[in-house]
Amino acid sequence: MTDFFKDIPAIRYEGPDTENEFAFRHYNPDEVVMGKTLKDHLRFACAYWHSFAWPGGDPFGGQTFERPWFGDTMELAKLKADVAFDMFERLGVPYFCFHDADVRPEGDTFAESTKNLEEITDYFAEKMDATGVKLLWGTANLFSHRRFMAGAATNPDPEVFAYSAATIKSCMDATRKLGGENYVLWGGREGYETLLNTDMARERAQAGRMLQMVVDYKHKTGFAGTILIEPKPQEPTKHQYDYDVATVYGFLKDFGLEGEVKVNIEQGHAILAGHSFEHELALARALGIFGSIDMNRNDYQSGWDTDQFPNNVPEMALAYYEVLRAGGFDTGGTNFDAKLRRQSLDPADLILAHVGGMDACAAGLKAAAAMLEDGKLEAAREARYAGWSEGLGQKLLTSDLAEISDLVIAKGINPQPRSGRQERLENLVNKYL
Amino acid sequence: MTDFFKDIPAIRYEGPDTENEFAFRHYNPDEVVMGKTLKDHLRFACAYWHSFAWPGGDPFGGQTFERPWFGDTMELAKLKADVAFDMFERLGVPYFCFHDADVRPEGDTFAESTKNLEEITDYFAEKMDATGVKLLWGTANLFSHRRFMAGAATNPDPEVFAYSAATIKSCMDATRKLGGENYVLWGGREGYETLLNTDMARERAQAGRMLQMVVDYKHKTGFAGTILIEPKPQEPTKHQYDYDVATVYGFLKDFGLEGEVKVNIEQGHAILAGHSFEHELALARALGIFGSIDMNRNDYQSGWDTDQFPNNVPEMALAYYEVLRAGGFDTGGTNFDAKLRRQSLDPADLILAHVGGMDACAAGLKAAAAMLEDGKLEAAREARYAGWSEGLGQKLLTSDLAEISDLVIAKGINPQPRSGRQERLENLVNKYL
Amino acid sequence: MTDFFKDIPAIRYEGPDTENEFAFRHYNPDEVVMGKTLKDHLRFACAYWHSFAWPGGDPFGGQTFERPWFGDTMELAKLKADVAFDMFERLGVPYFCFHDADVRPEGDTFAESTKNLEEITDYFAEKMDATGVKLLWGTANLFSHRRFMAGAATNPDPEVFAYSAATIKSCMDATRKLGGENYVLWGGREGYETLLNTDMARERAQAGRMLQMVVDYKHKTGFAGTILIEPKPQEPTKHQYDYDVATVYGFLKDFGLEGEVKVNIEQGHAILAGHSFEHELALARALGIFGSIDMNRNDYQSGWDTDQFPNNVPEMALAYYEVLRAGGFDTGGTNFDAKLRRQSLDPADLILAHVGGMDACAAGLKAAAAMLEDGKLEAAREARYAGWSEGLGQKLLTSDLAEISDLVIAKGINPQPRSGRQERLENLVNKYL
Amino acid sequence: MTDFFKDIPAIRYEGPDTENEFAFRHYNPDEVVMGKTLKDHLRFACAYWHSFAWPGGDPFGGQTFERPWFGDTMELAKLKADVAFDMFERLGVPYFCFHDADVRPEGDTFAESTKNLEEITDYFAEKMDATGVKLLWGTANLFSHRRFMAGAATNPDPEVFAYSAATIKSCMDATRKLGGENYVLWGGREGYETLLNTDMARERAQAGRMLQMVVDYKHKTGFAGTILIEPKPQEPTKHQYDYDVATVYGFLKDFGLEGEVKVNIEQGHAILAGHSFEHELALARALGIFGSIDMNRNDYQSGWDTDQFPNNVPEMALAYYEVLRAGGFDTGGTNFDAKLRRQSLDPADLILAHVGGMDACAAGLKAAAAMLEDGKLEAAREARYAGWSEGLGQKLLTSDLAEISDLVIAKGINPQPRSGRQERLENLVNKYL
Ligand SMILES: [Co+2]
Ligand SMILES: [Co+2]
Ligand SMILES: [Co+2]
Ligand SMILES: [Co+2]
Ligand SMILES: [Co+2]
Ligand SMILES: [Co+2]
Ligand SMILES: [Co+2]
Ligand SMILES: [Co+2]
Repeated sequence: MTDFFKDIPAIRYEGPDTENEFAFRHYNPDEVVMGKTLKDHLRFACAYWHSFAWPGGDPFGGQTFERPWFGDTMELAKLKADVAFDMFERLGVPYFCFHDADVRPEGDTFAESTKNLEEITDYFAEKMDATGVKLLWGTANLFSHRRFMAGAATNPDPEVFAYSAATIKSCMDATRKLGGENYVLWGGREGYETLLNTDMARERAQAGRMLQMVVDYKHKTGFAGTILIEPKPQEPTKHQYDYDVATVYGFLKDFGLEGEVKVNIEQGHAILAGHSFEHELALARALGIFGSIDMNRNDYQSGWDTDQFPNNVPEMALAYYEVLRAGGFDTGGTNFDAKLRRQSLDPADLILAHVGGMDACAAGLKAAAAMLEDGKLEAAREARYAGWSEGLGQKLLTSDLAEISDLVIAKGINPQPRSGRQERLENLVNKYL
Repeated sequence: MTDFFKDIPAIRYEGPDTENEFAFRHYNPDEVVMGKTLKDHLRFACAYWHSFAWPGGDPFGGQTFERPWFGDTMELAKLKADVAFDMFERLGVPYFCFHDADVRPEGDTFAESTKNLEEITDYFAEKMDATGVKLLWGTANLFSHRRFMAGAATNPDPEVFAYSAATIKSCMDATRKLGGENYVLWGGREGYETLLNTDMARERAQAGRMLQMVVDYKHKTGFAGTILIEPKPQEPTKHQYDYDVATVYGFLKDFGLEGEVKVNIEQGHAILAGHSFEHELALARALGIFGSIDMNRNDYQSGWDTDQFPNNVPEMALAYYEVLRAGGFDTGGTNFDAKLRRQSLDPADLILAHVGGMDACAAGLKAAAAMLEDGKLEAAREARYAGWSEGLGQKLLTSDLAEISDLVIAKGINPQPRSGRQERLENLVNKYL
Repeated sequence: MTDFFKDIPAIRYEGPDTENEFAFRHYNPDEVVMGKTLKDHLRFACAYWHSFAWPGGDPFGGQTFERPWFGDTMELAKLKADVAFDMFERLGVPYFCFHDADVRPEGDTFAESTKNLEEITDYFAEKMDATGVKLLWGTANLFSHRRFMAGAATNPDPEVFAYSAATIKSCMDATRKLGGENYVLWGGREGYETLLNTDMARERAQAGRMLQMVVDYKHKTGFAGTILIEPKPQEPTKHQYDYDVATVYGFLKDFGLEGEVKVNIEQGHAILAGHSFEHELALARALGIFGSIDMNRNDYQSGWDTDQFPNNVPEMALAYYEVLRAGGFDTGGTNFDAKLRRQSLDPADLILAHVGGMDACAAGLKAAAAMLEDGKLEAAREARYAGWSEGLGQKLLTSDLAEISDLVIAKGINPQPRSGRQERLENLVNKYL
Repeated sequence: MTDFFKDIPAIRYEGPDTENEFAFRHYNPDEVVMGKTLKDHLRFACAYWHSFAWPGGDPFGGQTFERPWFGDTMELAKLKADVAFDMFERLGVPYFCFHDADVRPEGDTFAESTKNLEEITDYFAEKMDATGVKLLWGTANLFSHRRFMAGAATNPDPEVFAYSAATIKSCMDATRKLGGENYVLWGGREGYETLLNTDMARERAQAGRMLQMVVDYKHKTGFAGTILIEPKPQEPTKHQYDYDVATVYGFLKDFGLEGEVKVNIEQGHAILAGHSFEHELALARALGIFGSIDMNRNDYQSGWDTDQFPNNVPEMALAYYEVLRAGGFDTGGTNFDAKLRRQSLDPADLILAHVGGMDACAAGLKAAAAMLEDGKLEAAREARYAGWSEGLGQKLLTSDLAEISDLVIAKGINPQPRSGRQERLENLVNKYL
């Protein structure tokens, strides 16, 4: 272990009443809920980028973090890895996630960047072996470098498309090598700044072609993981093609990939798209494309992606309720796509932000499980639609407009509203919290 | 003609310099642009609901308008029709649009409501004959009455589904009878207030089934018009299933109806969904589902649908530019889904709001046409993607990830960013305004 | 008691584990926290308007509620009062609030409206005597009737100003008669729809003059209650002059009334203004104008005032924490300015919505009290500013720019950032929940 | 002149029909409108920061611009100045604006930073002399460096307050030396990230004290310019104390500085605060604190400050209408606080973005002047309030609530609503565009 976290103990579960800041109050990894340990339910992952690569800048200010591993050498990249794995172990998280740009210095050429990636991922492999920490997913950073400023797959310049394709291949290779359970695509620059210079039909076709190649490469190489798209409506672009779950679904249908690709849903992106997190989760479940989550929180008063550590347990209970209704995670998991506030300078801040987030997730999941096991909410939902299992409901499934019209007139159908009972259901949810 | 507008002249084109408020300054219906008259390009329609049925209420206040035709008798319904057609003629609009609930009193039974609808639409038929005014589209109001409070097609109660189906049939019949060129579905209550009591997968399936029946009925009855869905993200519901163009597209694909149904895009709904109007238009064009527009304007500082008369010509130029790029309207048109502010009490306000809106549309369309005919904007757009027509671009279309990666390494591809020229293009647009 | 709630028992505290929906799980009115009972801390009030006068309409649909007391007679007004006081008693709320328009039929003349108000408030007085329920505040509805469509105090027509002044007087008289502890002004129409027809300086002066008259009348009549302004940024208007707490403060300062008038802060209005509820509370406290709260919740994905019953305990804990830091309520209290969803048709929904809200408030307040008594959060806050009590901090209070500049240069001051510890503080807060 | 813009001509007025991109179509500096040249009306200024110091980064990507002057030496600072003044001259803008951090390299100590500032501003002085370009305003960058991460005047650490005070002094000195006509304070970090660690009352007092010292120093040094506060609601912080014009006014009143300090209003900040630009301008005028404008545009679909070059002439006409109603600029002017999109890499983009913005401002101002000279809009506004000049209106000014109530009853006052004529006024505005 490095000495970055030197005064900070490994984090253990001590129960709700502990006064120890450096302990879990709700996350007992071995606690069994609905037949599975919390560890296996939640499948926590740390995000390399926010915790180890982000310097603390914002649009009006530069770096606030001063980390000993900041810099552009392979040596510093390894120091960064040492600290990262140290944190993973102290927290007891089973997984991590990374972009290529988070973990290796950019080379002078694509070939050199790839070589750097191979070297650092070999180093990761050793550390993963030693610690048991696994890779939830890998991904390619196709948005930070200026070459991607006008898009990656959707760039007007085919050279950028080619460079992006090559980069994705290198990241898929690295992910496969490390036994990653998913591969993620977030199209941060796949969108536009102004419609005036944009050919949407063409860019959409390019995006479809790239996705098809990714799926083909997965099969060709025998990568067993899931391909995931992470929707976001905008920021950094004015408009992003993977706006939200519904938009991604239409895109997948268009290219016949709805059976090949699932979604990685982020709370903050749901909010930016005008949805609740649970909406996006429920919709993905309804459409059969639920994959994984990027757990964080967005400030409701901010119009940009704040990527904060989550802390509102009632909201998280509703989110995990949808995860559990979807059958829980398969290859997916709970990735903390969350960053410290830029004023949170101390190593302890980094550890404790994760501790708080993990505890909130655990508390949310336990409430969700109790709610689901109790069954009252689902019973109420089903009762509301009961009429569809009966005579008229069944008949409607085989009638046409004219027949139904005849029926309405003949029977003098005059539907009477029934209470939606929203507040009673909200009270019921609060009972489990 | 009635005497409601008695001091108001028929509106004629007098050119930009007229001091006459009751004249068009930009809309000369006979002016030819890109080979078509403005009348044929714009295909203006007035909306019955906002102009003749809305009493001026808002969530914190009741009726402000006192119209002689307000009330629930067929006699008043005919008076309303008289005034409406009087307005259509004075304005010279070629089309109108209506919901059943705008035009006939609700009956005690569905049968009686239908009878009322038939009677009033017979009355319309006479007036249409007499005036030459045509029906752009008809639609069913499946959202105002309390029976629809939990949805129409997506209601948990099959009786409401049946009642809705019968209502749609009656409105499609009326539309066909009147030679309507489209039939519109806006799902104002097809969404949810709370996920807690909602089965999204089931409701989505119900919506799909209803749409299939509508399409079947269209074909069965030989209705020659276009079926249009009007997207809106929310309000009155917390979430509406037809959120935006991309969402509707995914829905259509799911039910195999993307060749049967197009979209009616409203400016205000685009704004509420986090998009510009031109975005939604351009996307619908790219997806092949562009149909018609509900022209209005949303206040950018309000979080609800303000349905104001449009007045910002530069914005409208961008919108009509997309309409023209899509080939112009086929069966669609420019429906003013716009209402007076509730303080605009005078008959003259109603006329002049339309005059201002029509003028702004005409000015926008003329600017758009000039821009398109000049070709500079399109030339700039095409130039940006020129690389895709050449060697590398073409090669990429038949390569896979691994081959592209080899190519990038072999050729040392290192893409150099090129200016997106956004401000220059914005300046170019302003040149036509 | 009436039979509207006939199958519903009086609500009693049964503790967190009760399975009885019709019981409090957290609100034990007699429980003592920080030396005061929960009843005295929370000072709950029911809002007459949402619970008894609102028909369930929204901008796209009409009445959903069918209440036996709906109608325009004094007899029905008394039936409404009977049901209202029945609910107050069953819930055990100590207070209620009302507008004139909620409780009496509008008369043909102002005089008749006032007579009706006097009659119904005499009836209230008897019921208050009999039940012990008290009046938290009264207010005038100066926004629903069409006469107020262009403002009340700020109307361009002096007749409306006069009518509004007379109405306020009648409502202040009623409030005083009933021993009301506050009088509230919410300026729902005091704003504008368009700047184009608005003289803001003049309208602001009119508003100031009206407020001065209200304060004068309070003193003249010996009304012992507090005058409260309720800020809201917009809706129904495009812009409301009492935008938020900071805006109201500037307005009060301008008219020299900051010592006479306080604010009634509503959660939903804070959200619409781009603030958190706790922000508005903390600011009012910092400015010395904290008065009372309208407890409800706004949907974060809706752009209008949803006035929902509150249910997120962590958010409410932060709100009550600010209330407690402000010394708790003096004449103020917790008014549920919350309405049922329009689909919640049943009498039980009305009772249970309040039960859930009261429980959530109680849970929030108890967490807030524990947090404040524990003192860790306040200790952390104070420690952050400790430097201001020491040498340099003190010196800065008596120096000018030039002296401070000399000091910085002389001492080579080069400030070193310190962690803001946001996530640690968020974890700390979660400990009390 | 440098060779950065080497192929770009000086920009001249060529009229609306020119095909030359590098010419003004509307801005003829010598054109006289309402007795003043456009140059004197508009008082254009370029912003050093966006055009010369910003590297093109955003939250998801780094530098896109590669400018020969990027770097940290005085030599490069002078090259930057050479290019900047070259641009000012080519554009014919009479003014510029700057922060200390835009123009000089940061030193190792405050003293060295100040020395660098003095040296570069001496260099500016020479160039100003040579070119006739003047300084509209100077300001201090108290937000980019990590030392300011928790605020400048409002920092919990008094050392930061001291450092900020010294920095402001150095920037005021530089501004005075260069004959700057205003000094601006934008409190980008004067706010909070989380209420949990914030003492708002204390921070507000610190801000007030700093502002008082600034005003004192202005008077002590005989600086003849205006002190301006630039409101913004949030970003980079979660909440900024100078939220909007109304908030700043309350703050000024609290510290007795409303006669000493005015506001610099930015379009983008108005939008972020939930207001239109013209609202903020009209309010500042009504409160007597209108000073200057930061002209740019915010994307209505983005929730952050996009600082784009303005291009919507109708919106700008409404803004300049308020400027003209306020008597035009005194010491203030039109500063382009606007930045190129990060994809606009070319020198020509920088020039043409300004050309487009200047043209749009000129067109807007000319429309506004025509509208004001024509007088119809003001006549309509005044007519709406005419009743206040007559009997009842005058009487109300000297009555109290009880007297007015008597009057309403005695006269049977029953106000009749009058049309607000919004759409007619909107049509009227469009006539001038
Ligand atoms: Co993410
Ligand atoms: Co994010
Ligand atoms: Co519409
Ligand atoms: Co609309
Ligand atoms: Co309220
Ligand atoms: Co409210
Ligand atoms: Co600015
Ligand atoms: Co800005």
